[in-house]
Amino acid sequence: MFTVIKFIDITEKINYESIKAELGNKFVLKSKKMGYDGYGNATIRTGSEFNDALNRLKKRHSEIYAEKFVPFVKELAVLVVRTKKENKIYPVVETIQKNHICHTVIAPARVNSDVIRKINKIAIAAVKTIQGFGIFGIEFFLLENGSVLVNEIAPRPHNTGHYRIEACTISQFENHIRAVLELPLGNTDLIKPYAVMINLLGKRNGVGVVQNYFETLKNENLHLHIYGKAESRTGRKMGHITLLGSDLKTILSQANKIARQIIL
Amino acid sequence: MFTVIKFIDITEKINYESIKAELGNKFVLKSKKMGYDGYGNATIRTGSEFNDALNRLKKRHSEIYAEKFVPFVKELAVLVVRTKKENKIYPVVETIQKNHICHTVIAPARVNSDVIRKINKIAIAAVKTIQGFGIFGIEFFLLENGSVLVNEIAPRPHNTGHYRIEACTISQFENHIRAVLELPLGNTDLIKPYAVMINLLGKRNGVGVVQNYFETLKNENLHLHIYGKAESRTGRKMGHITLLGSDLKTILSQANKIARQIIL
Repeated sequence: MFTVIKFIDITEKINYESIKAELGNKFVLKSKKMGYDGYGNATIRTGSEFNDALNRLKKRHSEIYAEKFVPFVKELAVLVVRTKKENKIYPVVETIQKNHICHTVIAPARVNSDVIRKINKIAIAAVKTIQGFGIFGIEFFLLENGSVLVNEIAPRPHNTGHYRIEACTISQFENHIRAVLELPLGNTDLIKPYAVMINLLGKRNGVGVVQNYFETLKNENLHLHIYGKAESRTGRKMGHITLLGSDLKTILSQANKIARQIIL
Repeated sequence: MFTVIKFIDITEKINYESIKAELGNKFVLKSKKMGYDGYGNATIRTGSEFNDALNRLKKRHSEIYAEKFVPFVKELAVLVVRTKKENKIYPVVETIQKNHICHTVIAPARVNSDVIRKINKIAIAAVKTIQGFGIFGIEFFLLENGSVLVNEIAPRPHNTGHYRIEACTISQFENHIRAVLELPLGNTDLIKPYAVMINLLGKRNGVGVVQNYFETLKNENLHLHIYGKAESRTGRKMGHITLLGSDLKTILSQANKIARQIIL
Protein backbone atom coordinates (compact mmCIF):
# COMPACT_ATOMS: atom_id res chain seq x y z
CA MET A 1 0.00 0.00 0.00
CA PHE A 2 1.31 3.43 -0.90
CA THR A 3 0.60 6.81 0.66
CA VAL A 4 0.67 9.60 -1.90
CA ILE A 5 1.37 13.14 -0.76
CA LYS A 6 -1.38 15.54 -1.76
CA PHE A 7 -0.47 17.91 -4.57
CA ILE A 8 -2.26 20.49 -6.71
CA ASP A 9 -1.34 21.65 -10.22
CA ILE A 10 -1.05 25.43 -10.32
CA THR A 11 -3.35 26.98 -12.93
CA GLU A 12 -4.62 30.54 -13.35
CA LYS A 13 -7.78 29.71 -11.48
CA ILE A 14 -5.96 28.61 -8.35
CA ASN A 15 -4.84 31.15 -5.78
CA TYR A 16 -2.87 31.11 -2.53
CA GLU A 17 -5.95 30.92 -0.29
CA SER A 18 -7.43 27.91 -2.09
CA ILE A 19 -4.14 25.98 -1.87
CA LYS A 20 -3.77 26.88 1.80
CA ALA A 21 -7.30 25.63 2.46
CA GLU A 22 -6.38 22.32 0.85
CA LEU A 23 -2.75 21.74 1.97
CA GLY A 24 -2.41 23.76 5.16
CA ASN A 25 -0.36 26.83 6.10
CA LYS A 26 2.97 25.39 5.04
CA PHE A 27 3.44 23.81 1.63
CA VAL A 28 6.07 23.47 -1.11
CA LEU A 29 5.96 24.84 -4.65
CA LYS A 30 7.83 22.70 -7.16
CA SER A 31 8.68 23.07 -10.82
CA LYS A 32 7.61 19.98 -12.80
CA LYS A 33 10.78 20.03 -14.87
CA MET A 34 14.27 21.54 -14.61
CA GLY A 35 14.23 21.10 -10.86
CA TYR A 36 17.50 19.97 -9.28
CA ASP A 37 19.79 21.06 -6.44
CA GLY A 38 16.84 23.02 -5.02
CA TYR A 39 16.60 25.30 -8.06
CA GLY A 40 12.96 24.31 -8.70
CA ASN A 41 11.68 24.28 -5.09
CA ALA A 42 10.33 26.80 -2.58
CA THR A 43 8.79 26.35 0.86
CA ILE A 44 5.76 28.65 1.30
CA ARG A 45 4.43 30.06 4.59
CA THR A 46 2.80 33.36 3.46
CA GLY A 47 1.00 34.91 0.51
CA SER A 48 3.97 37.09 -0.39
CA GLU A 49 6.32 34.10 -0.30
CA PHE A 50 3.87 32.40 -2.67
CA ASN A 51 3.91 35.28 -5.19
CA ASP A 52 7.69 35.68 -5.09
CA ALA A 53 8.33 31.96 -5.48
CA LEU A 54 5.80 31.58 -8.30
CA ASN A 55 7.50 34.34 -10.31
CA ARG A 56 10.96 32.84 -9.69
CA LEU A 57 9.97 29.25 -10.52
CA LYS A 58 8.03 30.20 -13.68
CA LYS A 59 11.23 31.64 -15.13
CA ARG A 60 12.69 28.11 -15.09
CA HIS A 61 9.62 26.21 -16.30
CA SER A 62 5.93 27.12 -16.55
CA GLU A 63 4.43 23.96 -15.01
CA ILE A 64 4.31 24.29 -11.23
CA TYR A 65 2.56 22.29 -8.55
CA ALA A 66 2.00 22.72 -4.83
CA GLU A 67 2.75 19.80 -2.52
CA LYS A 68 1.71 19.26 1.10
CA PHE A 69 4.67 19.91 3.39
CA VAL A 70 6.01 16.65 4.85
CA PRO A 71 7.14 17.07 8.49
CA PHE A 72 10.13 14.75 8.09
CA VAL A 73 12.64 14.05 10.84
CA LYS A 74 15.38 12.91 8.49
CA GLU A 75 16.11 12.60 4.78
CA LEU A 76 17.48 9.25 3.62
CA ALA A 77 18.69 7.99 0.25
CA VAL A 78 19.73 4.76 -1.37
CA LEU A 79 21.09 3.60 -4.72
CA VAL A 80 19.68 0.62 -6.57
CA VAL A 81 21.46 -0.91 -9.54
CA ARG A 82 19.49 -3.31 -11.69
CA THR A 83 20.01 -5.55 -14.71
CA LYS A 84 17.73 -8.18 -16.23
CA LYS A 85 19.41 -10.75 -13.99
CA GLU A 86 20.10 -9.07 -10.65
CA ASN A 87 19.57 -6.13 -8.27
CA LYS A 88 22.11 -4.73 -5.89
CA ILE A 89 21.59 -2.00 -3.35
CA TYR A 90 24.11 0.34 -1.74
CA PRO A 91 23.92 1.19 1.97
CA VAL A 92 21.10 3.53 3.04
CA VAL A 93 22.56 6.97 3.73
CA GLU A 94 21.43 10.01 5.65
CA THR A 95 21.41 13.30 3.76
CA ILE A 96 21.43 16.73 5.30
CA GLN A 97 20.13 19.51 3.04
CA LYS A 98 20.82 23.21 3.38
CA ASN A 99 18.60 25.59 1.34
CA HIS A 100 17.06 22.62 -0.54
CA ILE A 101 20.50 21.40 -1.69
CA CYS A 102 22.33 18.29 -0.51
CA HIS A 103 25.10 19.35 1.88
CA THR A 104 26.22 16.31 3.89
CA VAL A 105 25.89 12.56 3.30
CA ILE A 106 26.50 10.11 6.15
CA ALA A 107 26.92 6.40 5.38
CA PRO A 108 25.42 4.27 6.77
CA ALA A 109 22.35 6.21 7.98
CA ARG A 110 21.83 6.38 11.77
CA VAL A 111 18.42 4.69 11.72
CA ASN A 112 17.12 1.37 13.00
CA SER A 113 17.12 -1.86 11.01
CA ASP A 114 13.32 -1.72 10.45
CA VAL A 115 13.71 1.53 8.53
CA ILE A 116 16.59 0.04 6.49
CA ARG A 117 14.50 -3.02 5.59
CA LYS A 118 11.53 -0.87 4.53
CA ILE A 119 13.68 1.38 2.38
CA ASN A 120 15.47 -1.50 0.66
CA LYS A 121 12.15 -3.14 -0.14
CA ILE A 122 10.46 0.01 -1.44
CA ALA A 123 13.51 1.14 -3.43
CA ILE A 124 13.83 -2.13 -5.35
CA ALA A 125 10.05 -2.30 -5.88
CA ALA A 126 10.04 1.28 -7.21
CA VAL A 127 12.77 0.60 -9.78
CA LYS A 128 11.08 -2.63 -10.87
CA THR A 129 7.72 -0.82 -11.22
CA ILE A 130 9.13 1.66 -13.71
CA GLN A 131 11.09 -1.19 -15.40
CA GLY A 132 14.33 0.62 -14.74
CA PHE A 133 17.77 -0.72 -15.64
CA GLY A 134 21.07 0.84 -14.59
CA ILE A 135 21.57 2.90 -11.45
CA PHE A 136 18.85 4.83 -9.63
CA GLY A 137 19.14 7.22 -6.71
CA ILE A 138 16.04 7.15 -4.52
CA GLU A 139 15.40 9.74 -1.82
CA PHE A 140 13.14 9.27 1.18
CA PHE A 141 11.56 11.29 3.98
CA LEU A 142 11.61 9.55 7.37
CA LEU A 143 8.60 10.57 9.50
CA GLU A 144 8.40 10.69 13.28
CA ASN A 145 6.34 7.49 13.44
CA GLY A 146 9.07 5.55 11.57
CA SER A 147 7.26 5.41 8.21
CA VAL A 148 9.06 6.47 5.04
CA LEU A 149 7.92 8.32 1.90
CA VAL A 150 9.65 8.30 -1.48
CA ASN A 151 10.65 11.88 -2.32
CA GLU A 152 12.55 11.46 -5.60
CA ILE A 153 13.69 8.80 -8.05
CA ALA A 154 16.72 9.89 -10.06
CA PRO A 155 17.46 7.57 -13.03
CA ARG A 156 21.24 8.09 -12.96
CA PRO A 157 24.33 8.18 -10.71
CA HIS A 158 23.35 10.40 -7.81
CA ASN A 159 25.05 13.06 -5.72
CA THR A 160 24.22 11.12 -2.55
CA GLY A 161 26.35 8.28 -3.98
CA HIS A 162 29.56 10.19 -4.68
CA TYR A 163 31.09 8.89 -1.45
CA ARG A 164 31.02 5.44 -3.05
CA ILE A 165 33.96 6.33 -5.34
CA GLU A 166 36.23 5.63 -2.39
CA ALA A 167 33.94 4.04 0.20
CA CYS A 168 32.47 1.03 -1.60
CA THR A 169 34.23 -1.84 -3.35
CA ILE A 170 32.70 -0.98 -6.74
CA SER A 171 31.51 2.63 -7.29
CA GLN A 172 28.07 3.70 -8.57
CA PHE A 173 29.69 4.80 -11.83
CA GLU A 174 31.30 1.41 -12.56
CA ASN A 175 28.14 -0.48 -11.57
CA HIS A 176 26.03 1.75 -13.81
CA ILE A 177 28.28 0.96 -16.79
CA ARG A 178 28.23 -2.74 -15.90
CA ALA A 179 24.42 -2.66 -15.72
CA VAL A 180 23.88 -1.02 -19.10
CA LEU A 181 26.36 -3.47 -20.65
CA GLU A 182 24.49 -6.35 -18.93
CA LEU A 183 27.63 -7.46 -17.08
CA PRO A 184 27.60 -9.00 -13.58
CA LEU A 185 27.35 -6.28 -10.90
CA GLY A 186 30.11 -5.48 -8.40
CA ASN A 187 30.04 -5.51 -4.60
CA THR A 188 28.21 -2.51 -3.08
CA ASP A 189 29.46 -2.89 0.53
CA LEU A 190 31.21 -0.15 2.47
CA ILE A 191 34.93 -0.93 2.91
CA LYS A 192 35.23 1.09 6.13
CA PRO A 193 32.60 1.35 8.88
CA TYR A 194 31.67 4.99 8.08
CA ALA A 195 31.91 7.51 5.27
CA VAL A 196 31.07 11.22 5.20
CA MET A 197 30.69 13.25 2.01
CA ILE A 198 30.20 17.02 2.00
CA ASN A 199 29.42 19.03 -1.12
CA LEU A 200 31.66 22.06 -1.64
CA LEU A 201 29.18 24.78 -2.58
CA GLY A 202 30.22 28.06 -4.19
CA LYS A 203 30.81 30.74 -1.54
CA ARG A 204 30.83 33.68 -3.98
CA ASN A 205 30.16 34.64 -7.59
CA GLY A 206 33.30 34.73 -9.70
CA VAL A 207 35.95 32.57 -11.34
CA GLY A 208 35.94 28.99 -10.09
CA VAL A 209 39.43 29.02 -8.59
CA VAL A 210 39.79 26.92 -5.47
CA GLN A 211 41.41 28.59 -2.45
CA ASN A 212 42.67 27.43 0.97
CA TYR A 213 42.93 23.76 0.02
CA PHE A 214 46.61 23.31 0.91
CA GLU A 215 46.08 23.12 4.68
CA THR A 216 43.11 20.75 4.30
CA LEU A 217 45.25 18.19 2.46
CA LYS A 218 47.33 17.84 5.62
CA ASN A 219 44.55 15.49 6.69
CA GLU A 220 46.20 12.57 4.89
CA ASN A 221 42.89 10.69 4.53
CA LEU A 222 41.05 13.49 2.72
CA HIS A 223 39.65 12.75 -0.73
CA LEU A 224 39.27 16.15 -2.40
CA HIS A 225 37.24 16.42 -5.61
CA ILE A 226 37.15 19.73 -7.52
CA TYR A 227 34.96 19.68 -10.61
CA GLY A 228 36.89 22.32 -12.53
CA LYS A 229 33.84 24.49 -13.27
CA ALA A 230 35.04 27.76 -14.78
CA GLU A 231 32.52 29.90 -12.96
CA SER A 232 31.53 29.89 -9.30
CA ARG A 233 28.13 31.03 -8.03
CA THR A 234 26.96 31.18 -4.42
CA GLY A 235 25.47 27.77 -3.60
CA ARG A 236 26.64 26.07 -6.84
CA LYS A 237 28.13 22.59 -6.49
CA MET A 238 31.83 23.09 -7.18
CA GLY A 239 33.28 19.88 -5.73
CA HIS A 240 33.00 17.51 -2.82
CA ILE A 241 35.11 15.90 -0.11
CA THR A 242 34.97 12.39 1.30
CA LEU A 243 36.41 10.94 4.50
CA LEU A 244 36.28 7.29 5.58
CA GLY A 245 36.90 6.00 9.07
CA SER A 246 35.83 3.90 11.99
CA ASP A 247 34.65 6.80 14.17
CA LEU A 248 31.79 8.81 12.66
CA LYS A 249 31.97 11.73 15.09
CA THR A 250 35.65 12.34 14.24
CA ILE A 251 35.31 12.22 10.46
CA LEU A 252 32.11 14.30 10.50
CA SER A 253 33.74 17.05 12.50
CA GLN A 254 36.91 16.93 10.34
CA ALA A 255 34.82 17.08 7.15
CA ASN A 256 32.75 20.05 8.35
CA LYS A 257 35.91 21.95 9.28
CA ILE A 258 37.51 21.22 5.89
CA ALA A 259 34.35 22.26 3.99
CA ARG A 260 34.32 25.58 5.87
CA GLN A 261 38.02 26.22 5.09
CA ILE A 262 37.95 25.66 1.33
CA ILE A 263 36.79 28.66 -0.72
CA LEU A 264 35.48 28.17 -4.24
CA MET B 1 77.66 0.22 3.47
CA PHE B 2 76.56 -0.91 0.04
CA THR B 3 77.30 -4.17 -1.80
CA VAL B 4 77.52 -3.66 -5.54
CA ILE B 5 76.85 -6.59 -7.86
CA LYS B 6 79.75 -7.25 -10.20
CA PHE B 7 79.14 -6.26 -13.81
CA ILE B 8 81.15 -6.05 -17.02
CA ASP B 9 80.53 -3.80 -20.03
CA ILE B 10 80.35 -5.86 -23.20
CA THR B 11 82.89 -4.65 -25.79
CA GLU B 12 84.30 -6.36 -28.87
CA LYS B 13 87.32 -7.54 -26.90
CA ILE B 14 85.23 -9.45 -24.37
CA ASN B 15 84.04 -12.96 -25.10
CA TYR B 16 81.84 -15.51 -23.35
CA GLU B 17 84.76 -17.36 -21.73
CA SER B 18 86.25 -14.24 -20.16
CA ILE B 19 82.89 -13.19 -18.68
CA LYS B 20 82.31 -16.72 -17.36
CA ALA B 21 85.75 -16.67 -15.74
CA GLU B 22 84.85 -13.43 -13.97
CA LEU B 23 81.13 -13.88 -13.10
CA GLY B 24 80.63 -17.64 -12.96
CA ASN B 25 78.61 -20.10 -15.10
CA LYS B 26 75.33 -18.28 -14.74
CA PHE B 27 75.03 -14.56 -15.38
CA VAL B 28 72.57 -12.03 -16.85
CA LEU B 29 72.97 -9.92 -19.97
CA LYS B 30 71.22 -6.57 -19.76
CA SER B 31 70.61 -3.74 -22.19
CA LYS B 32 71.74 -0.40 -20.71
CA LYS B 33 68.72 1.38 -22.14
CA MET B 34 65.24 0.46 -23.47
CA GLY B 35 65.03 -2.38 -20.96
CA TYR B 36 61.60 -2.92 -19.36
CA ASP B 37 59.18 -5.79 -18.80
CA GLY B 38 62.07 -8.22 -19.42
CA TYR B 39 62.61 -6.98 -22.99
CA GLY B 40 66.23 -6.02 -22.29
CA ASN B 41 67.26 -9.02 -20.14
CA ALA B 42 68.54 -12.56 -20.69
CA THR B 43 69.84 -15.18 -18.26
CA ILE B 44 72.91 -16.96 -19.70
CA ARG B 45 74.04 -20.49 -18.91
CA THR B 46 75.87 -21.53 -22.13
CA GLY B 47 77.92 -20.06 -24.97
CA SER B 48 75.10 -20.44 -27.49
CA GLU B 49 72.62 -18.72 -25.14
CA PHE B 50 75.20 -15.91 -24.91
CA ASN B 51 75.43 -15.48 -28.70
CA ASP B 52 71.66 -15.64 -29.24
CA ALA B 53 70.92 -13.18 -26.44
CA LEU B 54 73.62 -10.75 -27.56
CA ASN B 55 72.15 -10.61 -31.08
CA ARG B 56 68.63 -10.15 -29.74
CA LEU B 57 69.52 -7.45 -27.20
CA LYS B 58 71.71 -5.48 -29.63
CA LYS B 59 68.67 -4.97 -31.84
CA ARG B 60 67.07 -2.96 -29.02
CA HIS B 61 70.14 -1.00 -27.95
CA SER B 62 73.86 -1.43 -28.59
CA GLU B 63 75.17 -0.96 -25.04
CA ILE B 64 75.03 -4.25 -23.16
CA TYR B 65 76.53 -5.38 -19.88
CA ALA B 66 76.84 -8.69 -18.09
CA GLU B 67 75.85 -8.91 -14.41
CA LYS B 68 76.64 -11.59 -11.84
CA PHE B 69 73.53 -13.73 -11.26
CA VAL B 70 71.99 -13.03 -7.86
CA PRO B 71 70.63 -16.21 -6.20
CA PHE B 72 67.61 -14.45 -4.74
CA VAL B 73 64.88 -16.23 -2.78
CA LYS B 74 62.27 -13.53 -3.36
CA GLU B 75 61.77 -10.29 -5.25
CA LEU B 76 60.36 -7.38 -3.26
CA ALA B 77 59.35 -3.87 -4.21
CA VAL B 78 58.33 -0.65 -2.54
CA LEU B 79 57.14 2.80 -3.56
CA VAL B 80 58.57 5.97 -2.06
CA VAL B 81 56.94 9.35 -2.64
CA ARG B 82 58.96 12.40 -1.74
CA THR B 83 58.56 16.17 -1.64
CA LYS B 84 60.85 18.84 -0.20
CA LYS B 85 58.93 18.53 3.08
CA GLU B 86 58.06 14.86 3.54
CA ASN B 87 58.54 11.20 2.50
CA LYS B 88 55.89 8.53 2.52
CA ILE B 89 56.35 4.88 1.75
CA TYR B 90 53.79 2.32 0.56
CA PRO B 91 53.77 -1.22 1.99
CA VAL B 92 56.59 -3.53 0.87
CA VAL B 93 55.21 -6.01 -1.68
CA GLU B 94 56.33 -9.36 -3.00
CA THR B 95 56.60 -9.67 -6.76
CA ILE B 96 56.60 -12.90 -8.71
CA GLN B 97 58.13 -12.67 -12.18
CA LYS B 98 57.54 -15.03 -15.08
CA ASN B 99 59.97 -14.79 -18.04
CA HIS B 100 61.54 -11.63 -16.54
CA ILE B 101 58.14 -9.86 -16.45
CA CYS B 102 56.14 -8.98 -13.35
CA HIS B 103 53.25 -11.44 -13.05
CA THR B 104 51.90 -11.32 -9.49
CA VAL B 105 52.13 -8.71 -6.72
CA ILE B 106 51.23 -9.64 -3.13
CA ALA B 107 50.73 -6.89 -0.54
CA PRO B 108 52.05 -6.87 2.08
CA ALA B 109 55.10 -9.07 1.39
CA ARG B 110 55.36 -12.27 3.42
CA VAL B 111 58.72 -11.39 5.01
CA ASN B 112 59.82 -10.62 8.56
CA SER B 113 59.85 -7.13 10.07
CA ASP B 114 63.66 -6.89 9.90
CA VAL B 115 63.52 -7.14 6.12
CA ILE B 116 60.74 -4.51 5.98
CA ARG B 117 62.78 -2.13 8.14
CA LYS B 118 65.90 -2.58 5.97
CA ILE B 119 63.96 -2.02 2.75
CA ASN B 120 62.18 1.09 4.01
CA LYS B 121 65.48 2.57 5.15
CA ILE B 122 67.39 1.78 1.95
CA ALA B 123 64.51 2.88 -0.31
CA ILE B 124 64.20 6.33 1.25
CA ALA B 125 68.02 6.73 1.37
CA ALA B 126 68.23 5.78 -2.34
CA VAL B 127 65.66 8.38 -3.42
CA LYS B 128 67.31 11.05 -1.25
CA THR B 129 70.74 10.19 -2.70
CA ILE B 130 69.60 10.88 -6.24
CA GLN B 131 67.66 13.96 -5.00
CA GLY B 132 64.44 12.51 -6.34
CA PHE B 133 61.02 14.12 -5.97
CA GLY B 134 57.72 12.48 -6.88
CA ILE B 135 57.08 8.76 -6.85
CA PHE B 136 59.75 6.05 -7.22
CA GLY B 137 59.35 2.29 -7.55
CA ILE B 138 62.30 0.44 -6.04
CA GLU B 139 62.82 -3.28 -6.60
CA PHE B 140 64.87 -5.55 -4.36
CA PHE B 141 66.35 -9.05 -4.32
CA LEU B 142 65.99 -10.84 -0.98
CA LEU B 143 68.88 -13.28 -0.41
CA GLU B 144 68.81 -16.45 1.63
CA ASN B 145 70.75 -14.83 4.51
CA GLY B 146 68.08 -12.09 4.84
CA SER B 147 70.11 -9.34 3.20
CA VAL B 148 68.58 -7.26 0.40
CA LEU B 149 70.00 -5.80 -2.82
CA VAL B 150 68.50 -2.93 -4.84
CA ASN B 151 67.68 -4.24 -8.32
CA GLU B 152 66.01 -1.24 -9.95
CA ILE B 153 64.95 2.32 -9.23
CA ALA B 154 62.08 3.47 -11.47
CA PRO B 155 61.46 7.25 -11.31
CA ARG B 156 57.70 7.01 -11.95
CA PRO B 157 54.47 5.24 -10.96
CA HIS B 158 55.33 1.55 -11.06
CA ASN B 159 53.58 -1.62 -12.19
CA THR B 160 54.13 -3.15 -8.74
CA GLY B 161 52.02 -0.29 -7.36
CA HIS B 162 48.91 -0.68 -9.55
CA TYR B 163 47.12 -2.54 -6.76
CA ARG B 164 47.17 0.73 -4.83
CA ILE B 165 44.44 2.23 -7.05
CA GLU B 166 41.94 0.27 -4.95
CA ALA B 167 44.00 -1.02 -2.04
CA CYS B 168 45.48 2.11 -0.47
CA THR B 169 43.75 5.26 0.77
CA ILE B 170 45.55 7.49 -1.76
CA SER B 171 46.90 5.86 -4.96
CA GLN B 172 50.44 6.16 -6.33
CA PHE B 173 49.10 8.28 -9.19
CA GLU B 174 47.42 10.86 -6.93
CA ASN B 175 50.42 11.00 -4.60
CA HIS B 176 52.78 11.50 -7.55
CA ILE B 177 50.70 14.48 -8.75
CA ARG B 178 50.55 15.85 -5.19
CA ALA B 179 54.34 15.52 -4.89
CA VAL B 180 55.17 17.35 -8.12
CA LEU B 181 52.71 20.11 -7.14
CA GLU B 182 54.35 20.27 -3.68
CA LEU B 183 51.06 19.48 -1.93
CA PRO B 184 50.78 17.49 1.31
CA LEU B 185 50.96 13.72 0.61
CA GLY B 186 48.07 11.31 1.17
CA ASN B 187 47.88 8.21 3.36
CA THR B 188 49.71 5.19 1.89
CA ASP B 189 48.19 2.51 4.16
CA LEU B 190 46.40 -0.59 2.89
CA ILE B 191 42.63 -0.38 3.51
CA LYS B 192 42.20 -4.17 3.66
CA PRO B 193 44.64 -6.68 5.20
CA TYR B 194 45.75 -8.12 1.82
CA ALA B 195 45.80 -7.24 -1.86
CA VAL B 196 46.78 -9.32 -4.88
CA MET B 197 47.45 -7.87 -8.34
CA ILE B 198 48.08 -10.04 -11.40
CA ASN B 199 49.13 -8.65 -14.78
CA LEU B 200 47.05 -9.85 -17.71
CA LEU B 201 49.68 -10.72 -20.30
CA GLY B 202 48.86 -11.24 -23.99
CA LYS B 203 48.19 -14.91 -24.72
CA ARG B 204 48.42 -14.58 -28.52
CA ASN B 205 49.38 -12.18 -31.32
CA GLY B 206 46.40 -10.37 -32.81
CA VAL B 207 43.81 -7.70 -32.13
CA GLY B 208 43.59 -6.70 -28.48
CA VAL B 209 40.02 -7.82 -27.88
CA VAL B 210 39.36 -9.20 -24.42
CA GLN B 211 37.59 -12.57 -24.21
CA ASN B 212 36.06 -14.67 -21.40
CA TYR B 213 35.75 -11.80 -18.94
CA PHE B 214 32.00 -12.14 -18.31
CA GLU B 215 32.28 -15.14 -15.99
CA THR B 216 35.17 -13.59 -14.05
CA LEU B 217 33.05 -10.54 -13.14
CA LYS B 218 30.76 -12.86 -11.19
CA ASN B 219 33.39 -12.50 -8.48
CA GLU B 220 31.77 -9.31 -7.20
CA ASN B 221 35.02 -8.06 -5.64
CA LEU B 222 37.07 -8.23 -8.84
CA HIS B 223 38.68 -5.03 -10.08
CA LEU B 224 39.29 -5.60 -13.79
CA HIS B 225 41.54 -3.19 -15.70
CA ILE B 226 41.85 -3.51 -19.48
CA TYR B 227 44.26 -1.03 -21.06
CA GLY B 228 42.55 -0.87 -24.45
CA LYS B 229 45.73 -1.60 -26.43
CA ALA B 230 44.73 -2.19 -30.07
CA GLU B 231 47.23 -4.99 -30.61
CA SER B 232 47.96 -8.02 -28.46
CA ARG B 233 51.31 -9.83 -28.46
CA THR B 234 52.23 -12.93 -26.46
CA GLY B 235 53.54 -11.71 -23.10
CA ARG B 236 52.52 -8.05 -23.62
CA LYS B 237 50.90 -6.29 -20.65
CA MET B 238 47.27 -5.89 -21.72
CA GLY B 239 45.62 -5.20 -18.34
CA HIS B 240 45.61 -6.24 -14.72
CA ILE B 241 43.28 -7.49 -12.02
CA THR B 242 43.18 -6.66 -8.31
CA LEU B 243 41.48 -8.40 -5.42
CA LEU B 244 41.41 -7.21 -1.80
CA GLY B 245 40.51 -9.33 1.19
CA SER B 246 41.31 -10.55 4.64
CA ASP B 247 42.43 -14.05 3.59
CA LEU B 248 45.47 -14.05 1.29
CA LYS B 249 45.22 -17.71 0.24
CA THR B 250 41.64 -17.23 -1.00
CA ILE B 251 42.22 -14.07 -3.02
CA LEU B 252 45.50 -15.41 -4.47
CA SER B 253 43.83 -18.56 -5.73
CA GLN B 254 40.81 -16.59 -7.07
CA ALA B 255 43.11 -14.14 -8.84
CA ASN B 256 45.19 -16.89 -10.46
CA LYS B 257 42.07 -18.62 -11.72
CA ILE B 258 40.66 -15.37 -13.17
CA ALA B 259 43.97 -14.51 -14.87
CA ARG B 260 44.00 -17.93 -16.54
CA GLN B 261 40.39 -17.53 -17.75
CA ILE B 262 40.69 -14.13 -19.42
CA ILE B 263 42.12 -14.19 -22.95
CA LEU B 264 43.62 -11.07 -24.47
